[in-house]
Amino acid sequence: MKRRDLLTLAAAGGALAACDSGSQSVAAAPQPQQRFTWKMYTTWPKNFPGLGTGANYLAEAIGKASGGRLTIKVYGAGERVPALEVFDAVSSGAAEMGHGAAYYWKGKAPASSFFTGVPFGLTAQEMNGWLEFGGGNALWQELYAPFNLVPFAAGNTGTQMGGWFRKEIHSVADLKGLKLRMPGLGGEVMARAGATTVNIPGGELFTALESGAIDATDWVGPYNDLAFGLYKAAKHYYYPGWQETGATLEAIVNRDAWDVLPDDLKEIVRVCAAAADRRMLSEYAARNQSALETLVNEHGVKVHAYPEDLIAKLQEISDQLLEDMAAADSFTAKVYASYKAYRDSVVRSTAFAEKAYLNLRR
Amino acid sequence: MKRRDLLTLAAAGGALAACDSGSQSVAAAPQPQQRFTWKMYTTWPKNFPGLGTGANYLAEAIGKASGGRLTIKVYGAGERVPALEVFDAVSSGAAEMGHGAAYYWKGKAPASSFFTGVPFGLTAQEMNGWLEFGGGNALWQELYAPFNLVPFAAGNTGTQMGGWFRKEIHSVADLKGLKLRMPGLGGEVMARAGATTVNIPGGELFTALESGAIDATDWVGPYNDLAFGLYKAAKHYYYPGWQETGATLEAIVNRDAWDVLPDDLKEIVRVCAAAADRRMLSEYAARNQSALETLVNEHGVKVHAYPEDLIAKLQEISDQLLEDMAAADSFTAKVYASYKAYRDSVVRSTAFAEKAYLNLRR
Repeated sequence: MKRRDLLTLAAAGGALAACDSGSQSVAAAPQPQQRFTWKMYTTWPKNFPGLGTGANYLAEAIGKASGGRLTIKVYGAGERVPALEVFDAVSSGAAEMGHGAAYYWKGKAPASSFFTGVPFGLTAQEMNGWLEFGGGNALWQELYAPFNLVPFAAGNTGTQMGGWFRKEIHSVADLKGLKLRMPGLGGEVMARAGATTVNIPGGELFTALESGAIDATDWVGPYNDLAFGLYKAAKHYYYPGWQETGATLEAIVNRDAWDVLPDDLKEIVRVCAAAADRRMLSEYAARNQSALETLVNEHGVKVHAYPEDLIAKLQEISDQLLEDMAAADSFTAKVYASYKAYRDSVVRSTAFAEKAYLNLRR
Repeated sequence: MKRRDLLTLAAAGGALAACDSGSQSVAAAPQPQQRFTWKMYTTWPKNFPGLGTGANYLAEAIGKASGGRLTIKVYGAGERVPALEVFDAVSSGAAEMGHGAAYYWKGKAPASSFFTGVPFGLTAQEMNGWLEFGGGNALWQELYAPFNLVPFAAGNTGTQMGGWFRKEIHSVADLKGLKLRMPGLGGEVMARAGATTVNIPGGELFTALESGAIDATDWVGPYNDLAFGLYKAAKHYYYPGWQETGATLEAIVNRDAWDVLPDDLKEIVRVCAAAADRRMLSEYAARNQSALETLVNEHGVKVHAYPEDLIAKLQEISDQLLEDMAAADSFTAKVYASYKAYRDSVVRSTAFAEKAYLNLRR
């Protein structure tokens, strides 16, 4: 290797060193910093607004904050593995990092739904309170430890819309036989209320709805749903998203990849995940309304509140579902106890704060 | 330097290199990374829960994420300069960084109030949407540029409480002659409604209220107010905080200090500010309720909703105040136009999302 190559190498490495011929003369010398290149597999269509671009932002922020020492290449759903295999791929180390939603993995870890959000659950702000100050993050880490994964909250959609329906619904009876895509616990609530639920990754959703393979689907909210074109396949758009009241998106890191990171890069991953979390919520907050106006004014979408009696029924079923889940799995019981204590408290303080304010605002 | 050291060095660097003896062999070599030590002056009592600890967290996160290359020592209000001189101290370079609230500087830059929040304004989530995706951050940077400062959102309290009053208030008439501490535009609204408002930094507030030098004050919310002991000086606690509906706290950086940072440290400051922003909001969300219960159950605090007719009057005055401010200052007019367009849009999407959901939640 030539001198100039070594100098180039050294320049790239970030530390000062020299060795001159024949002697021990040496200058400077911290260890050059190790560089890491990771793959991030995501459950989102590549560059999908909000979700996919949120994953892109996370990768870019880590790259910039680390001065290129941790470079992350992002892959959309299906580029390397299908959306619903991201968890396994990161667990095995096929990718060092993933971006998706915890509730996709409820078949592997029943408590995972709590870390996206449960029906009639917390708002984004309340959810982050539980994760960061109410014990949520520690439980999430414990849940994922057997899978060799370290989780981070790395995005939030805010309160979503309730979903797209090909036909209007007026009551619980209208759910009978309805073929519905709604992942996580919302889907289980709908199943108990009479619907037939299926789990379809985002990339296959539009086709399924358009073809009539399904009758209804949730997705996210106006900004995302407009981009996804769901209005072309269904015209009835329900609110609010009782099933996803402040959905947390996750970044997951393979434990072996995590363990070899130096402390500064670990902190960079942590703070960039937090920045990505805030940024995604900001993006949804800022962009939903103009998308909603486009949907209504240009695409003839009809916006409906969920029927009150249906909401009451769904809320009752949701409460029971959480109890049943806790009874069926001891770790879920532990998560639920923490979540419920926090929820019952925060609901009251939010009533004096955001809720009281939103209701008096003109 | 020995060959094996070079190999170790090279291996650690993620690339292979070697230099052999007796020739032009050279290893490694970039500039050692420059280290920076900054002072952060804050407007908060040292270590004050939520606000002061939020500033501490920001400094610690930057230190950790930078591997100690950017070390920040935090000073509480009055340690080096009084709270209300933080802006000037960072502007002049006496400190490289500050942490406070933009509305404290409305005497220097009239539009600054918009970057903390205006009466009957945005929630935290909506505010971040404006800053990050609605043009707010760019306007804030433009506003502070003549002061040699670069601003970042680096904390949010969520919707606050309305304030502490030594006597109950029943109507607008009860504001007549009331001596009130309420910084920012909320104080101006109260002044137009008949109160006498004063600007007192946090550290002097309790004494002023207890001595009767003032009759009422806002502060933050239950978590902070309990720690501050305001209940010892006043028993009537009003909600919601129409004057601070999602108050953004700021980090400010001296432009000269900022300009010499390498790009990776700039990004670290950006993402750590965002992480600090989310974290503070999480802390308030998680801790307000138990504090409120302590205030009510152990300290005999009486919680009241603001009288409806007073709220209506305050909202009317607030609208007019923003118009007047825009008419009086061209940069404020520019900020107000951006803010108003965003607000009028986001209010409608929040109505379908968080507001609709909070109202159906049991």
